[in-house]
Order: sequence, then structure tokens, then C-alpha cells
Amino acid sequence: MWTLEVQTRQRVSFVDITRDVARLVADAGDGAVVVFVPHTTAGVTINEDADPSVRADLEMALERLVPRDLPFAHAEGNSDAHTKASLMGSSVTVPVVAGTPQLGTWQGIYFAEFDGPRRRRVLVTFLPA
Amino acid sequence: MWTLEVQTRQRVSFVDITRDVARLVADAGDGAVVVFVPHTTAGVTINEDADPSVRADLEMALERLVPRDLPFAHAEGNSDAHTKASLMGSSVTVPVVAGTPQLGTWQGIYFAEFDGPRRRRVLVTFLPA
Amino acid sequence: MWTLEVQTRQRVSFVDITRDVARLVADAGDGAVVVFVPHTTAGVTINEDADPSVRADLEMALERLVPRDLPFAHAEGNSDAHTKASLMGSSVTVPVVAGTPQLGTWQGIYFAEFDGPRRRRVLVTFLPA
Repeated sequence: MWTLEVQTRQRVSFVDITRDVARLVADAGDGAVVVFVPHTTAGVTINEDADPSVRADLEMALERLVPRDLPFAHAEGNSDAHTKASLMGSSVTVPVVAGTPQLGTWQGIYFAEFDGPRRRRVLVTFLPA
Repeated sequence: MWTLEVQTRQRVSFVDITRDVARLVADAGDGAVVVFVPHTTAGVTINEDADPSVRADLEMALERLVPRDLPFAHAEGNSDAHTKASLMGSSVTVPVVAGTPQLGTWQGIYFAEFDGPRRRRVLVTFLPA
Repeated sequence: MWTLEVQTRQRVSFVDITRDVARLVADAGDGAVVVFVPHTTAGVTINEDADPSVRADLEMALERLVPRDLPFAHAEGNSDAHTKASLMGSSVTVPVVAGTPQLGTWQGIYFAEFDGPRRRRVLVTFLPA
């Protein structure tokens, strides 16, 4: 298992970690890589890598789904972030062939920050086929 | 790793790929199968296999969650599809015992198309326990 | 593969299964544990373990996202539960080092019941690295 560190810069932001993950598994063989986020106000998702407006649209749509000002009980005021984290999920699993993650042409792996800016960790595990 | 091809027929549709996945791992032993979608406007999910109205309801609920006419920036006009793809997720992982996916009685694996009709691929990987 | 049994007590509730999962993999080495729910009106998610109000907020936010009274077609009247199950997902995958799931400080694994009370099962599989 490897650990990546990610410094996020805004409250909500999607940080591209595709290359970092690819580098870690480059000497692995065939199998799958699990990218896991050990935080409860951040998640991880796979989406379009090419046009950055897709990420902005995803942030906007999630904000409309779970507005920060819902009548939440949790005193820290970040329950919207907890909810968005569960909607995106805490891990993604990507098949790997000869050390290369089999992402589609337009796919990238994004750390999904919902309560930043913070210093975050990402745990990367290779599972052999 | 195996590749399945899926031809979708509408803009939004859930295509049952349970049997295709089961056939691929039939000679595998114990472990888990990862079903991965290498696209950014489609995902994969597990839901009820028995009554097709559940799939129609799921499509309707997702359409209400992320309407196509939100004020999106991405010029291709399919940001709703990107968002729905991240909400469903890009992979499912199902335990396998003696070559049989351990799905529940009512569960099926669905390719979730959100910007079809298109010719799509699904990557299937068996990970031994 | 191991099976856990979970008895849920309300229609919607998040049941903490972190310790049960940890106990099962305690003698495993390095790899990842897949926690899979073989039901279509329940899911599994990882979220905050410390303050129970986070779980209540998550339930409330999901209820607002997918109200029970949407114009659903499925005759059993639980299509909201099917939708929430797909939004949370049917499995989580957590890295394991020397038999210890590498959850973050505040993370717990929750069985997410959306159509209880019911007697449910959870399938737990360890995949070696």
C-alpha cells in the first residue's frame, strides 16, 4: 500500500491524481488498483479529464443536490460535505494490465474535496489478478 | 481482464449485463469480480432484476436529481450525464465463490447509459481471494 | 468469504458494522476487504463514526434527494429505497495492512438500510495484495 498526499486549495474542488496513481502501479503486473480516501468529508470519483468545465459542472450539480444550508443537526456545519462524500464514494477500483491502469480515453481519477482547504491522504493498493 | 461490448439504444437506459459477467468468471475460483466502465457519461450499478419498473423509476429519480437543463458550462450539453455517471460510480465489485458471483436473489448488474445511444465497453477483472 | 447478519430496526437506518468487519480480517495479511450487500433496497457506505448526528443528517439529506412520494411506477412502493441503494452503492473496498483495515480516524463502515426493518446479510471478502 502506498500513500499519496494531496493539498486542496478551496472548500470544494476536484484534484486530478491520475498520474500519481499510474506512477505507483507502473511496475505492478495485471490486476486492479484500489484508490481509497480515509476521510469523511472527501471522496474520490472518475470523470472527464479533458474539459475542466465538466468538473465545475459536477461541483455545481452536487451543490444543488446537497446545499450547505439544509437543516442539518451536526454542529460542525459540514454535513453537506459528509453527504457529498458518501454520494461520490470513498474508493474507486480500476483494472490494471501490465502496470497500466485501464482508464478510458477521457477518464481521470479525481480526489473530491468537499470541506477544504486541507492536507489530505489517499491510500493506493494494488491487487493482483 | 475481459472486455464486453454493449450497444445502448436510448439516451438513458439500464442494460442488464449480469449473465455476461457470470459467464466470464464461471471458471474462476473464489475471489471477487470488478466490473469497470471506461466511459465518463455512463456508469454501472447493481439493482433489482425482477420488476423492470424499478429501472424506470431509477432513471426518473436520477433525471429529477440532475435535470439536463441545469445551468451547466460544458459545451457538449451532457454534463447531466457526467454527473449521473459519478453518482452511480464507474465500477461494482461482487464476491465470487467457486466461479459464481454472490449476487442476492433480486440483484442484477446494470450498465447505466446516460448519453446514448452509443457503442460501449465494459472491463471485467477477476481478483482471487 | 464470510457472512454477517444485520437486523435493522427502522425503515431507514445506518448500522455500524466496522468492528464486525475488522474482526473477520484480523488474521489476514495485506490486501483489501470488500464489504458487499446482496440486497436491492439497502447499501453500504463509509462515513463519520464519532458524532451520530452525521448519520441523521445523511438520512435526512437522502430523504430530500429521493422523497418516498415521487411518482414511481414500481408497485411495492419502495422505489425510493432502490434509488438510495444505488446512490450509496452495494459495496465498499478498504485497504488492509497486517490484518487492520486502514480506515481514517473518523471513518466507520455503515450498513445503509432504506426499506427496513429487515433481517439482512453482508458478504465480506478479503483480497490479498
